[in-house]
Amino acid sequence: MKFTTHALLCVLVLSLASCARPGPPSEAMDLAQVRQALEAANAKFVEAFNRGDAAAVAALYTDDATLLPPSSDLIRGRQGLQDFWSAAMKAGLKDVALTTVDVWGSGDTACEIGKYSVTVQPEGQERRADSGKYLVVWKRQTDGSWKLQADIWNSNLPPQ
Amino acid sequence: MKFTTHALLCVLVLSLASCARPGPPSEAMDLAQVRQALEAANAKFVEAFNRGDAAAVAALYTDDATLLPPSSDLIRGRQGLQDFWSAAMKAGLKDVALTTVDVWGSGDTACEIGKYSVTVQPEGQERRADSGKYLVVWKRQTDGSWKLQADIWNSNLPPQ
Repeated sequence: MKFTTHALLCVLVLSLASCARPGPPSEAMDLAQVRQALEAANAKFVEAFNRGDAAAVAALYTDDATLLPPSSDLIRGRQGLQDFWSAAMKAGLKDVALTTVDVWGSGDTACEIGKYSVTVQPEGQERRADSGKYLVVWKRQTDGSWKLQADIWNSNLPPQ
Repeated sequence: MKFTTHALLCVLVLSLASCARPGPPSEAMDLAQVRQALEAANAKFVEAFNRGDAAAVAALYTDDATLLPPSSDLIRGRQGLQDFWSAAMKAGLKDVALTTVDVWGSGDTACEIGKYSVTVQPEGQERRADSGKYLVVWKRQTDGSWKLQADIWNSNLPPQ
């Protein structure tokens, strides 16, 4: 019995230590691993966007995601996002590139600052380049994958 | 001894239950309380901005915060932020108002979607109104307060 008591005491101490407060337990987020997962998801975004597949782009967002595009009110929900990205493709946005700059977060919430570049070429009009930056909040899904929960960006260039 | 063993067993089970996995422990974030804290911080931002105190605005950000303003590259660090907000005030931005729309997050990371309105009146030029939306990632400080870690916005209006 004494052994059992000591064994239990050890397990108790270890189990308490493993979820010690204060300080967010989520500090243990493996940022290198999360960054790799977000970059892989961004690669899927770019691939889907550049082949003009708005549904595949929208599928990378959570069901209740919010998109905050310039010159637009905010847009909620996957169908609205798909319609937005479809319209953007039809308006001549192509050759998107994304570069992750910073990743941080805790628990199931990861934040990413990145830079984008894109070509804008409306039909019959001159081709122009745009570049800017974005902030995306990602949400870890129950299967361990990450989806975009909120997505906002703006151009580095003066208004055109 | 038997009592002690049982007592330890109970404590062990309770302590393990209190930090049960899977699922981020940070789901326990009290969103109503966090929202209240962020709205209070936003009220300080608005008050400082509208009296033209760029240093007080910058003090609401973390030391290593990132600002992602439209028509600009990203800006890092409190002095850079203070210079930006000071320049914005001199350029005629005033009467800022902020309205929180959504708050979520986990651990020490809180995310806020909101709407802004602002008046822009460069010296000797016509007054115009701007409105748009923002995404801010807040970081909980060791004293329990929240500071802006990343801040990006864009206008709902067409480019002007």
